[in-house]
Amino acid sequence: MGTTPRPLVGVKPSNSLLLLAFLLTFVLVGSRGESNAMDNVATERMAEESHRQDSANLLIFIMLLTLTILTIWLFKHRRFRFLHETGLAMIYGLLVGVILRFGVHVPQSMSDLVLSCAVNASPATLLVNVSGRFYEYTLKGEVSRSKGHQVQDDEMLRKVTFDPEVFFNILLPPIIFHAGYSLKRRHFFRNIGSILAYAFMGTVISCFVIGLIMYGFVSFMKVVGQLAGDFYFTDCLFFGAIVSATDPVTVLAIFNELKVDVDLYALLFGESVLNDAVAIVLSSSIVAYQPAGDNSHSFEAMAMLKSFGIFLGVFSGSFALGVATGVMTALISFHMLRDFPLLETALFFLMSWSTFLLAEACGFTGVVAVLFCGITQAHYTYNNLSPESQDRTKQLFELLNFLAENFIFSYMGLTLFSFQSHVFNPMFIIGAFVAVFLGRAANIYPLSFLLNLGRKNKIRSNFQHVMMFAGLRGAMTFALSIRDTATYARQMMFSTTLLIVFFTVWICGGGTMPMLSFMSIPVGVDSDQENLTNTNTKHESAWPFRMWYNFDHNYLKPLLTHSGPPLTATLPACCGPLARCLTSPQAYENEGQLHDDDSDFILNDASVSSMFADVTVSTDASGSHTVNRKRSSTASTGGGPWDEGLDHELAQAENEVAIRGTRLVLPMDDPVEHA
Amino acid sequence: MGTTPRPLVGVKPSNSLLLLAFLLTFVLVGSRGESNAMDNVATERMAEESHRQDSANLLIFIMLLTLTILTIWLFKHRRFRFLHETGLAMIYGLLVGVILRFGVHVPQSMSDLVLSCAVNASPATLLVNVSGRFYEYTLKGEVSRSKGHQVQDDEMLRKVTFDPEVFFNILLPPIIFHAGYSLKRRHFFRNIGSILAYAFMGTVISCFVIGLIMYGFVSFMKVVGQLAGDFYFTDCLFFGAIVSATDPVTVLAIFNELKVDVDLYALLFGESVLNDAVAIVLSSSIVAYQPAGDNSHSFEAMAMLKSFGIFLGVFSGSFALGVATGVMTALISFHMLRDFPLLETALFFLMSWSTFLLAEACGFTGVVAVLFCGITQAHYTYNNLSPESQDRTKQLFELLNFLAENFIFSYMGLTLFSFQSHVFNPMFIIGAFVAVFLGRAANIYPLSFLLNLGRKNKIRSNFQHVMMFAGLRGAMTFALSIRDTATYARQMMFSTTLLIVFFTVWICGGGTMPMLSFMSIPVGVDSDQENLTNTNTKHESAWPFRMWYNFDHNYLKPLLTHSGPPLTATLPACCGPLARCLTSPQAYENEGQLHDDDSDFILNDASVSSMFADVTVSTDASGSHTVNRKRSSTASTGGGPWDEGLDHELAQAENEVAIRGTRLVLPMDDPVEHA
Repeated sequence: MGTTPRPLVGVKPSNSLLLLAFLLTFVLVGSRGESNAMDNVATERMAEESHRQDSANLLIFIMLLTLTILTIWLFKHRRFRFLHETGLAMIYGLLVGVILRFGVHVPQSMSDLVLSCAVNASPATLLVNVSGRFYEYTLKGEVSRSKGHQVQDDEMLRKVTFDPEVFFNILLPPIIFHAGYSLKRRHFFRNIGSILAYAFMGTVISCFVIGLIMYGFVSFMKVVGQLAGDFYFTDCLFFGAIVSATDPVTVLAIFNELKVDVDLYALLFGESVLNDAVAIVLSSSIVAYQPAGDNSHSFEAMAMLKSFGIFLGVFSGSFALGVATGVMTALISFHMLRDFPLLETALFFLMSWSTFLLAEACGFTGVVAVLFCGITQAHYTYNNLSPESQDRTKQLFELLNFLAENFIFSYMGLTLFSFQSHVFNPMFIIGAFVAVFLGRAANIYPLSFLLNLGRKNKIRSNFQHVMMFAGLRGAMTFALSIRDTATYARQMMFSTTLLIVFFTVWICGGGTMPMLSFMSIPVGVDSDQENLTNTNTKHESAWPFRMWYNFDHNYLKPLLTHSGPPLTATLPACCGPLARCLTSPQAYENEGQLHDDDSDFILNDASVSSMFADVTVSTDASGSHTVNRKRSSTASTGGGPWDEGLDHELAQAENEVAIRGTRLVLPMDDPVEHA
Repeated sequence: MGTTPRPLVGVKPSNSLLLLAFLLTFVLVGSRGESNAMDNVATERMAEESHRQDSANLLIFIMLLTLTILTIWLFKHRRFRFLHETGLAMIYGLLVGVILRFGVHVPQSMSDLVLSCAVNASPATLLVNVSGRFYEYTLKGEVSRSKGHQVQDDEMLRKVTFDPEVFFNILLPPIIFHAGYSLKRRHFFRNIGSILAYAFMGTVISCFVIGLIMYGFVSFMKVVGQLAGDFYFTDCLFFGAIVSATDPVTVLAIFNELKVDVDLYALLFGESVLNDAVAIVLSSSIVAYQPAGDNSHSFEAMAMLKSFGIFLGVFSGSFALGVATGVMTALISFHMLRDFPLLETALFFLMSWSTFLLAEACGFTGVVAVLFCGITQAHYTYNNLSPESQDRTKQLFELLNFLAENFIFSYMGLTLFSFQSHVFNPMFIIGAFVAVFLGRAANIYPLSFLLNLGRKNKIRSNFQHVMMFAGLRGAMTFALSIRDTATYARQMMFSTTLLIVFFTVWICGGGTMPMLSFMSIPVGVDSDQENLTNTNTKHESAWPFRMWYNFDHNYLKPLLTHSGPPLTATLPACCGPLARCLTSPQAYENEGQLHDDDSDFILNDASVSSMFADVTVSTDASGSHTVNRKRSSTASTGGGPWDEGLDHELAQAENEVAIRGTRLVLPMDDPVEHA
């Protein structure tokens, strides 16, 4: 111990250390102490061993992700579009699961002591008195009830199982935030009415249709004697809620690459982002349905009303919180922080994270708050960031989304074999597949019919089929189903959900290309052309939207960002001094511009009329081709592509085209670009 | 529950949902189930409450960090250099600590049950049988032994306390990796001999000097009766090891801003990065010193040899592992992944993280492995990354470093008040301050004297004083001292360490500017001028370095990166086919270049001789001024600045100057730039 580590290279060791070593020898001999630190060692060593095991387990997942990345690269390199990275991650997860299950046999360690103490509750923290010393234990959760089963458990498999709350508190937030942050797309806001209809009404319809069908199946199973435990109607509804959250990353990645119709893209993407929020709040409201007294699982008006109140309260609370933090970040980044990209990015990250924590601390749903925070950040804060911070925040959340998504999907593959309490019931599984199919149909077709009544730009039947087909289930469904696997019903749901996710991601995801050609969906569509031939803006330009747009454009944008007209121009004269003090100096420079770069939210009257004018003139008006080339070159690997630049360019290109339209000049269509 | 959420805006609710609501009413009434899920609810609610509390606590820290960022911005905006962000984070932490300690009074919840069971050990996992149901508990650690004391504990304060392992497994790795990744500096490698001497020998000297002095103080305290518990010599040595890790972020930030001598910067930065690694392995080796039998804490040759073996084994193992993963990443990024920045960045991140996990799983020190992994990544992998990925990885680790560092420092401030078992012993504290001062002096002055014997470019006495003064203690010292606070000795060490960190960061950090002017250290120094006037390369260009440089340049660089000469040129002719297959096509393009952009590692003979030539001609040769302007504009807020670009430009600029030197042309010195 008194010796010096040998210097790595080229330095002569000094003599002073030798002297120290000698000194030390005498001092150590002189200090004879009592030996009561010996008993610490055993505990320390055990904790160390446990930590080592944890590291090894986490390493398995990191290796899985690394492998996935390398294979994705190979696929992208060879332009092989059949399997998406998430599907791939699942396959690797499955393989590792099989190996762990059947290949590795770790002898069962006897380290799990079972205490049978007279405790009447299971507290979150437990102090255990071990011969005079107190050890603190934290509650990890309830383990499966059957003691006999527990002992048979494979130690290794139990070790690679994560706390389900990890998904909700660590992995889902970046995915959902990224979805919200990349949602700022011109076509999303064009179709917002339809998207909201699909996301809100559609999800609720789907939830109840699936719930009812499953209740039918479950009742039948009970009669036939196929059911080994309780399965209530609330369980059926819960199942309906969790499998109603769609996640068409695979489909959207292909859409993006092939330049499929932008409206279809916007509808699918918008729906999938928002229905996650609806499904999560819906499922927690269903769990909260607790009739008073012993007579649970029966109908009770009060309890149902309470559940409905919870739904509204949690949803609107989360929404308000997310928007509030987004606005606050916009205000901070508006008044300060420019020129310090690191500080800006750090603040952006922290504020977005605090949205999640704040919502959770208030009893709202963090994931939903984070979604709306992301949308608000994209709409306001993004404009205030320096260009470097814009890139940094995009890239950061793109990376986090990529890692979290692939982690979840590979974990999904793994759990098919590593989860210890699977309940695969063939009848229930068949019923679930039928219900999921019918639930999706009951969402898409009737709603599309109703929406088409009001839409100028009809959702064509082949679009409806694609939307039906693209009802993939993914990360959210998995996270919701693994959150609670304590009861028989939940275990059966979890196992079935896994199979649904596998089926939809592999079969529906892999079948996207054939589906597109079968449905004769045009690919390689120029987004501007699509945009102009389909005059879908009438319906969305209803008065509440127009009012909101005007309010946003005239007051919120100038207040929160550096774009938009100065407040001095929009506020009444009496508010002059206040307006001057709140307006950014840059805003005056923008005054001449009619369209700021966020006019994607809704079209104002001028552009709507010019678009109509354009449509009457030509149906193949096409804008900037460079824009589309740029889009394909991003070759987005994450869920949503980043096309702020695109948005901006589109807005400009459209202005150009619109002007051409009103001047009755037929825009040229370059045939080379459409080859 | 059967009702639909009111759509946010402008969508007519369809009638189908009303129908569903009616249907549901009947179905729910029909499904009367038993009530055995009621007892689940209590547990669920408790877990929920605990989760909510955790979110709120984490939120406190996020808010603290946000506040710190805003204040830093204000400081930077006003060019106020007195207080560094880390010092600021500590102040905010202190304030919140005071508020939590004296302001908030949360009534003690009685949720902590104390079980007094006949368990003869404390296992890592505990299954508790609560009336037939099994709950899994995980060991959190031992709590302070005195039961009476425990009850008085403030619930709130205990809640804001993190598991100390969080620092080691989550917060330290990004900081250390960032340090390694930003270490690739031309001047670091020039001074590598001296840096290694300070880091290895210096840390060991400091550790033993502090240990011996503290042992003297403790022995005296025992005589006087000031000591309330055991304090062995190994404890003293352990204290010496943990307070020997320096962390001069504050000083370096100012150095960077003021353009203080680059060699001084390189010496301080290099020493502080490497001595962290030495201190952590040294401290764990001291903990591992366990003489056999009851007679612990006495001297035993075998145990000491074992400790020494552990030091060597852990250090070299971690080193090898880190370098191996770095090389593997370089190989992967060399042969694949170009053109996909997201995949590259993700792989880079995952491989670096897996280094940590792999080291921990193998029983080595993850933090040390991560450090050497970072250095290897910077030296090889960085050159293979696409420019976008280079930016992304830099920015990512810069952000992580910034967040982790400020989190640790604000937590430090908080623990001064929130930690429950502080032992402030005035004598021990005075002794520690004296020991830390003398230990630093025993490191710097004798070693500098020895090094100056061999160095051409002497380390001047004012440089030595600054190095002495810049011995700030920071994140590593804190993390090491909070890791184990079970015994009286460790608690006293922890409290004292906190004070040392506060003192050094505030007083030494804040006094950097006066110190620089008092020591008449030149500021605004042109790095090239410094570089050329001080011919410090002779000593470092000793044969082992030259051999390594040649090996690296001729074989490793071409094998692992796209720079350097092609292997076909450097390998013997017999290896022709192999060399052709391993060489990147880009390498042939580089063949003409003598200096690749990593020639900073060491100067080859040609440039050394040209430098000597230059020095004989002029002492005020100055290179590119733009480079230095660029450096100051980055205004780095993290620990180490990113100056890959700078390195590259410096290398080019230097070539230019060197050529001018050999041609005996006196370079011009622009007086405007030195104003």
